[in-house]
Amino acid sequence: MAKKIKDNRPGARLPKGLRDIEAAEIRAQNAMLASIRKVYENYGFEPLETPAFEYTDALGKFLPDSDRPNEGVFSLQDEDEQWLSLRYDMTAPLARYVAENFDRLPKPFRRYATGPVWRNEKPGPGRFRQFTQFDADTVGTESVAADAEMCMLAADTLEALGVPRGNFLIKVNNRKVLDGIMEAAGIAGEENAGRRLTVLRAIDKLDRLGLAGVEQLLGEGRLDESGDYTKGAGLSKDAISAIRAFVVPAKDGQDPFAELDGLLKNSEIGQEGRAELAQIAELISAAGYSDRVKIDPSVVRGLEYYTGPVFEAELTFEVTGDDGKPVRFGSVGGGGRYDDLVARFTGKTVPATGFSLGVSRLQAALNALGRGAEGDVPGPVVVLVMDRDRLSDYQALTQRLRSAGIRAEMYLGTSGMKAQMKYADKRGSPCVVIQGSDEREKGEVQIKDLIEGALAAQSIADNKEWKEARPAQFSVSEVALEEEVRKVLARHFPQSD
Amino acid sequence: MAKKIKDNRPGARLPKGLRDIEAAEIRAQNAMLASIRKVYENYGFEPLETPAFEYTDALGKFLPDSDRPNEGVFSLQDEDEQWLSLRYDMTAPLARYVAENFDRLPKPFRRYATGPVWRNEKPGPGRFRQFTQFDADTVGTESVAADAEMCMLAADTLEALGVPRGNFLIKVNNRKVLDGIMEAAGIAGEENAGRRLTVLRAIDKLDRLGLAGVEQLLGEGRLDESGDYTKGAGLSKDAISAIRAFVVPAKDGQDPFAELDGLLKNSEIGQEGRAELAQIAELISAAGYSDRVKIDPSVVRGLEYYTGPVFEAELTFEVTGDDGKPVRFGSVGGGGRYDDLVARFTGKTVPATGFSLGVSRLQAALNALGRGAEGDVPGPVVVLVMDRDRLSDYQALTQRLRSAGIRAEMYLGTSGMKAQMKYADKRGSPCVVIQGSDEREKGEVQIKDLIEGALAAQSIADNKEWKEARPAQFSVSEVALEEEVRKVLARHFPQSD
Repeated sequence: MAKKIKDNRPGARLPKGLRDIEAAEIRAQNAMLASIRKVYENYGFEPLETPAFEYTDALGKFLPDSDRPNEGVFSLQDEDEQWLSLRYDMTAPLARYVAENFDRLPKPFRRYATGPVWRNEKPGPGRFRQFTQFDADTVGTESVAADAEMCMLAADTLEALGVPRGNFLIKVNNRKVLDGIMEAAGIAGEENAGRRLTVLRAIDKLDRLGLAGVEQLLGEGRLDESGDYTKGAGLSKDAISAIRAFVVPAKDGQDPFAELDGLLKNSEIGQEGRAELAQIAELISAAGYSDRVKIDPSVVRGLEYYTGPVFEAELTFEVTGDDGKPVRFGSVGGGGRYDDLVARFTGKTVPATGFSLGVSRLQAALNALGRGAEGDVPGPVVVLVMDRDRLSDYQALTQRLRSAGIRAEMYLGTSGMKAQMKYADKRGSPCVVIQGSDEREKGEVQIKDLIEGALAAQSIADNKEWKEARPAQFSVSEVALEEEVRKVLARHFPQSD
Repeated sequence: MAKKIKDNRPGARLPKGLRDIEAAEIRAQNAMLASIRKVYENYGFEPLETPAFEYTDALGKFLPDSDRPNEGVFSLQDEDEQWLSLRYDMTAPLARYVAENFDRLPKPFRRYATGPVWRNEKPGPGRFRQFTQFDADTVGTESVAADAEMCMLAADTLEALGVPRGNFLIKVNNRKVLDGIMEAAGIAGEENAGRRLTVLRAIDKLDRLGLAGVEQLLGEGRLDESGDYTKGAGLSKDAISAIRAFVVPAKDGQDPFAELDGLLKNSEIGQEGRAELAQIAELISAAGYSDRVKIDPSVVRGLEYYTGPVFEAELTFEVTGDDGKPVRFGSVGGGGRYDDLVARFTGKTVPATGFSLGVSRLQAALNALGRGAEGDVPGPVVVLVMDRDRLSDYQALTQRLRSAGIRAEMYLGTSGMKAQMKYADKRGSPCVVIQGSDEREKGEVQIKDLIEGALAAQSIADNKEWKEARPAQFSVSEVALEEEVRKVLARHFPQSD
């Protein structure tokens, strides 16, 4: 067991930005995924699973923040030297699937998908290179009813996961409103495409840079802390002020469009965006979701990527941060309308809208809310090995427990009693089953209740009566093993079956 | 909706050897995974999830069939130019995890894992580059009780999935028996290591080459159909005959070890292997699994890789193949003891044993058995859009159905009635909800039962009475919508809730 082998050994370490997920978190995540799946199915979406990687040219470059193609993506080559890339989201593979199977699909096509995605980005605290998303998309309709539905789906999902109403908000904006504002700011037309892109990217950095930083990027440019200078969009003061009106949230109780509508009055695209938002608001209201879904022109994330309505699911409750100060959890998902993905392949514009939930991030939030605890499952009942010549007997007892639906195992190591008890403890076993030669002769087994035992050990007062009523270790007839173990489990886990 | 874009478009195609998985198969697979998980949990294993890729040096070269390192593996480089590889099984990442976390883990460490694995091998019919495995491993014990348990786990899992007893067999062999046979054949010792490897690889090809092909590889060598010549192990006739005794299954009712035991009587390792098999047989028998788990020296798969007991889970029923002839489904999983994986990292030999189920292959087998049909879920109830100005009303009806737990959606396209009915049909909707202006004025909705309607259309006889009793389309009060839809669903899907 301690034989040494040659010494040029690889290190046992995880690649940068990746992590292992252990039992309690997996169980909690599975419970979450089941709840989400139930809501998505309830909305009529069908599951679809695409493989982990695609031809790189089929994935395209859709990562919002990347300046060069395939930045942020893990790529590899097959034996024909064709480039493949691990999916960085669920939308790009959906586009490939829809383009490939267009004729036979129902229209609109409504699918959900969940699984890991991979990003070759700088890892950081809570920021991993593999994480799980849960997406729903409706492909093949221009109707904003499809967008409104995404917002209701998001709200129902968060409630199903245990986030109480009032602790989250689905915010809706529209890229066309921003396009209208840019028109008002005098940067419409083909010749200003580059400038508009600069504006979109500047706005997308609002979270990181704050309003002053964004305004620098809209104007002359910005010198960051590392001394790098980023050239700005070179907008006039009036133009910057128009965009500021778009970016700054309205004060509570004020109409968020009060100032914007004046700017948009001469913009056709702006008016179209406003009309779409009004229709979404009407659908939301008729369905009774106005308290959970709100129109908010200050939603800026993803505006470069989306072509119409944009949504963001935000948790609004506060938790205590690492520095002891209250922090908002913020965004746990988002989505919007994108009309160009399928056109990349087929040349036909197929309008689509979708919503994507960040499962890992949401799980962290649920833990903070105290709603993520379903991950605790009792450890197995451990049948101790008192006599190695009688392994078959212990194995048979173990199989009897398992057949009765009781999670159980025989101790499989080769160590003595002390190590066996320590093992049962480490596994969180509710009880162990013991049969030495004395018990065997009498046709009995002993059950040692480890939870009761731990409680008894904690109680300093000598509560004799209580201990006698619920002894932590007791003998039962061997034939009654399953029944007696079940009683111990029922005592400690009344809810489980 | 048909705007053309630039023409240098990528093809919408799946990479070679990959596939999309659609709704019915996903649902059936999820049901399977839940059943398997329940059995593995019942045996006391805990879930663990490792990431999709690892440092290439940490994965090592463990693919049984590969001659050069990392053959058969998909590899990529990170920004530090370190090589990473997609996992090709669940065992190599487990070894890395155990080595990295050894001190804090319970010993033995018992974990299960499921998920996709990737192999860069030549794809073929039913042979994909991404497929799903479901593994259980016990790490840190030499006890063959751990091996015996793997066999019982495999048997219980197949039964839980609906494979009836008598239609499968878990076969057990031991690498040490083969080592003993090789000793008897005169190729023991360090100087014959290369020859033994040739023998192991020859035996592993029994399925593909048949006995004659294997004997050529054990002797002088073999010329294959393409004209390539593979040099053999150069064994004597007696040696080849000893190995033939190992490889050829015993006739029904005969002791499979009748001839082998004579050959093994002077081999210490061979005797050890025999003793281990005897102990496994005893444990299996005591637990009542002798009808499902059998010792069989003709199991040869994976003998190069494993160091002790080897198992194979085989489906023994016959199905009709594509050519109309009966075929056996054969192997759906396997495993065995491997004692060197962790030593690669730590220098310490940590004995381990495991079992791996091929989920996709097993799913195909269950379909052939008619047990894989859980994948059918009724399509959503579709609320038709009769008047696009009244989207809000239809949306509200839809949300009412959803709130009542009924899978439903409003038609989200922009087409007319005929297309809407076609859509509902394609989605497998049990019924649609219709509210034109007439119904609305009366405070009613119409429910059209599509399943009943299809049956009525099929019946050529004019069964007037029956149609009147169960009309395929009928009006109900708007307030009773949920209740009436539920009645239609209950009529067609009595089991579901």
